[in-house]
Amino acid sequence: MALISLTTDFGTRDEYVGVMKAVILSIAPALNIVDISHQVGPQDRHQAAFLVKAAYPYFEAASIHVVVVDPGVGSQRRIVAMQFDGHFFMAPDNGICHLILDGRTPKVLVAIDRAEFHLPQVSQTFHGRDIFAPVAAQLALGKSLDVLGTPVDPAQLHPLQAPPAPQFGSGFLSGNLVQVDHFGNLTTNIDHRLLREAQTQSAGGAVTIRLGNQTLSGLSTCYADAPAGAPLALVGSRGLLEIAVNQGNARHFFGASRGDPVRLEWKPAPSPIDD
Amino acid sequence: MALISLTTDFGTRDEYVGVMKAVILSIAPALNIVDISHQVGPQDRHQAAFLVKAAYPYFEAASIHVVVVDPGVGSQRRIVAMQFDGHFFMAPDNGICHLILDGRTPKVLVAIDRAEFHLPQVSQTFHGRDIFAPVAAQLALGKSLDVLGTPVDPAQLHPLQAPPAPQFGSGFLSGNLVQVDHFGNLTTNIDHRLLREAQTQSAGGAVTIRLGNQTLSGLSTCYADAPAGAPLALVGSRGLLEIAVNQGNARHFFGASRGDPVRLEWKPAPSPIDD
Amino acid sequence: MALISLTTDFGTRDEYVGVMKAVILSIAPALNIVDISHQVGPQDRHQAAFLVKAAYPYFEAASIHVVVVDPGVGSQRRIVAMQFDGHFFMAPDNGICHLILDGRTPKVLVAIDRAEFHLPQVSQTFHGRDIFAPVAAQLALGKSLDVLGTPVDPAQLHPLQAPPAPQFGSGFLSGNLVQVDHFGNLTTNIDHRLLREAQTQSAGGAVTIRLGNQTLSGLSTCYADAPAGAPLALVGSRGLLEIAVNQGNARHFFGASRGDPVRLEWKPAPSPIDD
Repeated sequence: MALISLTTDFGTRDEYVGVMKAVILSIAPALNIVDISHQVGPQDRHQAAFLVKAAYPYFEAASIHVVVVDPGVGSQRRIVAMQFDGHFFMAPDNGICHLILDGRTPKVLVAIDRAEFHLPQVSQTFHGRDIFAPVAAQLALGKSLDVLGTPVDPAQLHPLQAPPAPQFGSGFLSGNLVQVDHFGNLTTNIDHRLLREAQTQSAGGAVTIRLGNQTLSGLSTCYADAPAGAPLALVGSRGLLEIAVNQGNARHFFGASRGDPVRLEWKPAPSPIDD
Repeated sequence: MALISLTTDFGTRDEYVGVMKAVILSIAPALNIVDISHQVGPQDRHQAAFLVKAAYPYFEAASIHVVVVDPGVGSQRRIVAMQFDGHFFMAPDNGICHLILDGRTPKVLVAIDRAEFHLPQVSQTFHGRDIFAPVAAQLALGKSLDVLGTPVDPAQLHPLQAPPAPQFGSGFLSGNLVQVDHFGNLTTNIDHRLLREAQTQSAGGAVTIRLGNQTLSGLSTCYADAPAGAPLALVGSRGLLEIAVNQGNARHFFGASRGDPVRLEWKPAPSPIDD
Repeated sequence: MALISLTTDFGTRDEYVGVMKAVILSIAPALNIVDISHQVGPQDRHQAAFLVKAAYPYFEAASIHVVVVDPGVGSQRRIVAMQFDGHFFMAPDNGICHLILDGRTPKVLVAIDRAEFHLPQVSQTFHGRDIFAPVAAQLALGKSLDVLGTPVDPAQLHPLQAPPAPQFGSGFLSGNLVQVDHFGNLTTNIDHRLLREAQTQSAGGAVTIRLGNQTLSGLSTCYADAPAGAPLALVGSRGLLEIAVNQGNARHFFGASRGDPVRLEWKPAPSPIDD
């Protein structure tokens, strides 16, 4: 059975999320709906894309991931839906799909523009309820993207600058913090492929991790490798280098924020001329 | 399949909401339960009624809307359930149903007083778990209100003063902020019928919207009509005049709170004597 | 149909809870999942056990209660699952099951160590997703604990000191605050059995409840017994003595925190020698 996931910046104080679910279930009553997060920062498309990218591989194939972070609601911005990597994604065309694709090509991409599948009355401020929810329910019931929208050339997707990719230099790899979680754990954009490359370049020498004015030596395998209250670095559950404090809060410990630079450093191999 | 919606002031830190769902599902395992909000302000019956009124029309007919904002739990206050506008509503008789009805008459109204449908042991502090949940589940399974309670004369419902209705004056319409949402958007009690009337009275002249010491000219059609960070007024998703800041927080921008007065102003048509 | 409940310290900002549900539903699509709380304080095993103990009796028999408060994730700590009191519980072996058992013996206790039921790739930081979720789904589908793990001697469970039990003295019963809820209500560890004993000892005389430098006289039956804004004591929905403020916040009123001492006091019966 198809599953719908929801990711929004709606919070949970208002009726907004419940109303989206009501609309979905009024069309597809047997559907399971899973909340990924409704606490995306207001208008924060980067965070929405980050969470959906981390979550979707754990959903059954052909799940439908609805992302409503939509400051342009009611304006000329399109709503797009795509089939990609065995899943469906629907979002405003404001860069979220661009970030999810990360340079790859969707199998199908359409603009969601068939009014017969929207609620009869469409507001200018809440397309989550009036368009996303009923169209996602139709998709879950088996309607194809071709029926629900009009094909769009993937090159026409609204682009959004991803955070700068990590960079290698002589004896270092520089990256950035891309997410701070509920525990205060700090996730970087350095994945294990880059970590392996750094370890290769260090030729087995010590690798240190620098954040702010603190330095950590080497990678731990789990939080409990450090004493309670002490900082450490490890590969987190998203496959990315993460900086944490065992039983503590790394955001507070380091005074760090998303975007802050992080560096892996090692003694560069002597260049041939030094031999 | 019937659906149950839940609106409470329980928050989500404690086991309270989960336990209500456990009781419902132990009686009606195939039921869908949708959270409208559990972040109603403690004891805030006005906010609870506002959220339920905004949400219920989007649920399938015959859905059951359970509202537990219940400072009088365990006292002599009744629990009531009603059939109204094709839906069912259950709440403490503390004004919530009165606000939902807003002067209209329910098709059926009963006091929930049949102990055989409550949990065997009823606490004095958590009727959400001990009475509302099991009775809502029975209602979802098809038991009628007549079986679950004793008829009550709608005139006997506990009244609760609604916020004062908007008032027209010479060249103005005064209303109030009735809800502040997660984004800081400010919803007023001025609906589109009143807006149309104001536009008629202004005879096509400029209409300004005044909140605090700020003035907005005219209605926008969507948030993106204003530059990022700038305020605007539009008809929000609940069909009510809303004051917002594009990609910003109007609550902070205006320093506004629920209850604050808002005014639409226009140049009054010259009276005949001026001709 | 079996039900899975989730209790974690994950919060709801990140994708963590949604991903656990995605994994469960990818294995057991027809399952109902109920959130007890995801706002357990980070690493707070006492609070997690308290919430689960308060909630599980309201779930259908054979429900599966998954508790992920797991500072030792990825270290040598075991994950354990037990059948107890007609339900199933799964948690890291860090004292949570010990607190739930409270000296009693589980019917079955196993270490969750059969990799064939875990996700193919197990991270060192998120066993909720990689082990708890898929194993709970298998349990819900009917696999037995013997198949999912290896028997463990209950005496080998990791112990965790419960808060000190209430103590009787001459003319008093001393206990502690063990939970502060969303409303600021203060739950103690004094249950009705102890309350009855205190009332017996007071021989019908007045019983006062002392918290901080405030004194309350006697037990109320419901919040509304006190005037709005006034403090009171009553037996709360968990069957424990609770201190509250009618339509107010007792945590603020008393400046109280979890762990604070609370005392019931009465005039001791004269000892025989005084006769």
